[in-house]
Amino acid sequence: MVAGDSAQRKSATRSPDGAAKVTITEIAREAGVSVPTVSRVVNGRSDVSPATRARIEDLLHRHKYRRRPAAPGARAALLDLVFNDLDSPWAVEIIRGVEEVAHEQGVGTVVSAIHDRAGAARQWMTNLRARASDGVILVTSALEPGLHDELRHLGVPLVVIDPAGSPATEAPTVGATNWAGGMAATEHLLGLGHRRIGFIEGPPRLLCSRARLDGYRAALDGAGAPVDAELIVPGDFYHESGFTGANRLLGLDDPPTAIFAASDQMALGVIEALRRRALRVPEDVSVVGFDDLPEVRWLSPPLTTVRQPLSEMGKLAAREVLDLARSVEPASPRVELATELVIRASTAPPRRG
Amino acid sequence: MVAGDSAQRKSATRSPDGAAKVTITEIAREAGVSVPTVSRVVNGRSDVSPATRARIEDLLHRHKYRRRPAAPGARAALLDLVFNDLDSPWAVEIIRGVEEVAHEQGVGTVVSAIHDRAGAARQWMTNLRARASDGVILVTSALEPGLHDELRHLGVPLVVIDPAGSPATEAPTVGATNWAGGMAATEHLLGLGHRRIGFIEGPPRLLCSRARLDGYRAALDGAGAPVDAELIVPGDFYHESGFTGANRLLGLDDPPTAIFAASDQMALGVIEALRRRALRVPEDVSVVGFDDLPEVRWLSPPLTTVRQPLSEMGKLAAREVLDLARSVEPASPRVELATELVIRASTAPPRRG
Repeated sequence: MVAGDSAQRKSATRSPDGAAKVTITEIAREAGVSVPTVSRVVNGRSDVSPATRARIEDLLHRHKYRRRPAAPGARAALLDLVFNDLDSPWAVEIIRGVEEVAHEQGVGTVVSAIHDRAGAARQWMTNLRARASDGVILVTSALEPGLHDELRHLGVPLVVIDPAGSPATEAPTVGATNWAGGMAATEHLLGLGHRRIGFIEGPPRLLCSRARLDGYRAALDGAGAPVDAELIVPGDFYHESGFTGANRLLGLDDPPTAIFAASDQMALGVIEALRRRALRVPEDVSVVGFDDLPEVRWLSPPLTTVRQPLSEMGKLAAREVLDLARSVEPASPRVELATELVIRASTAPPRRG
Repeated sequence: MVAGDSAQRKSATRSPDGAAKVTITEIAREAGVSVPTVSRVVNGRSDVSPATRARIEDLLHRHKYRRRPAAPGARAALLDLVFNDLDSPWAVEIIRGVEEVAHEQGVGTVVSAIHDRAGAARQWMTNLRARASDGVILVTSALEPGLHDELRHLGVPLVVIDPAGSPATEAPTVGATNWAGGMAATEHLLGLGHRRIGFIEGPPRLLCSRARLDGYRAALDGAGAPVDAELIVPGDFYHESGFTGANRLLGLDDPPTAIFAASDQMALGVIEALRRRALRVPEDVSVVGFDDLPEVRWLSPPLTTVRQPLSEMGKLAAREVLDLARSVEPASPRVELATELVIRASTAPPRRG
């Protein structure tokens, strides 16, 4: 069960806005339908006409109806953890954190991928309704506004990990200090004596990409080093764009002595581009990544990178969404957990000092 | 829902052993208890005495009772995907495959880690009962016999991916052709002209470790090359043991010219050991891994390895367990999907040839 006795007591004193709790009976009266019809909507059943469903969901939302935690003996609680893609070792770190907290509380973690496709997201929403999930954690991916509204109307609590853009909803978010991480990596390279530092960006639509770039710029400004636009090249977090970006940087008339890639996967692409040019890491060019995927400590040389506390982000998001399921609001709606520069062997002073 | 109409028809004609289907009423009569008591046991409720539960579960098992698929309109189906640890990029590949098949069928994938700890496995079993999961996929991990029996008694179908040891149950298994993979990697190195090929083993308690080692031996025998016991060193699939194993091999009076590590993570350890000795890959020593984790194609140099079709293994296991939930038996209870040697840049003819 999500809620123990103490949590239920808490929810009575900490009701989000002090509004008196509305019952299904009251919603039924106001909507002019039977109590079982409201129940069917609350439980995600499909046998209700769209117009009636919309009217009832609107009332549930206006009265801030929250589904009660399941009674003891009923089916166990579930939370939904939704990725855009399960194509990165990144994902398993977050799953690990969420699962650990959920497991402790007897809650099952349902993992889904929605692949940026409207059809898949719609199918997921149908499944979510049918399994009466107690909460949703969205990772990075941006749901279309319609689905966001639907979640809100269902009264299913939502927490967003690593928000993709400016939050479209009031949902609490858990991220990492991307700006501070971008600054720390750049300051490390400046401290080693580098002045021409290349930067390979993440996808511009993501907030975290912008924050890392701004951190890079802030460090250069702070050191009185010029920000040279030709040293900033586009990327998409994937390996190939790191390879391409590095080739572009290394082809400059005055190439950088260090390259900071905004993801570890791109840093691997940078290292491969250097190897093909018979340039050594870190003797000829220093390389820094971002993420600290489990594997990069085992690269040769081990990668200097900015650690994102992914499993901790997963843990915090799970705690928040399970609290919300008991009507306990998070202490802060926007949390960024600290990134940490991990200095390994891929960075060194520049050859030309 | 797991079962559509057509699947239900199928289950009627393909009942596993042709036994007449037993009803809860019949079980109740035989056990001398009420129908609701049997229901409570079937639905994983805790409010039944242990002795009564044991008697009922025994009858359910003896009569091969299978829980009916949920009725339309009831909560959606779930399947449980259980790892020992979520500590490897390996896991995300399997999750991806399982999720893809489950998602298509409107089934939620509940991911758990049981950490080889009896308490965690017991907790998971309690959660599984409470959420009335429709099927279980176990990855590698060996449940204690008691929990295996409990699953069987509950009538929850089970499929095992990459079985750890000789199967303790009659559950269908999905694996990879580890023996053929071990042979293919070794034959590749022999074909390049290597004669002294080091092998770093996986944990001996796992069947797949033994199969890879036997494949290595078979290839050497086939080529008339001697199997030198000092070239076979222990490992546990993790990075550190690859590093240690490589140092042991490289310290021999007549060190190998190639090293075949039984996992990619160990191959990364081998590469790091070589780098610390200023030995180049593949010019000085060739290296082959096993798994084909997504990252290893991006190593410098990209790693030659044996690909395990992890996401395909996940897909097949998901199809099998969802079929079993409809009483459709898999075509074959033991399936091994083909491994594939992927030749990249970490292997070359030996220097001293």
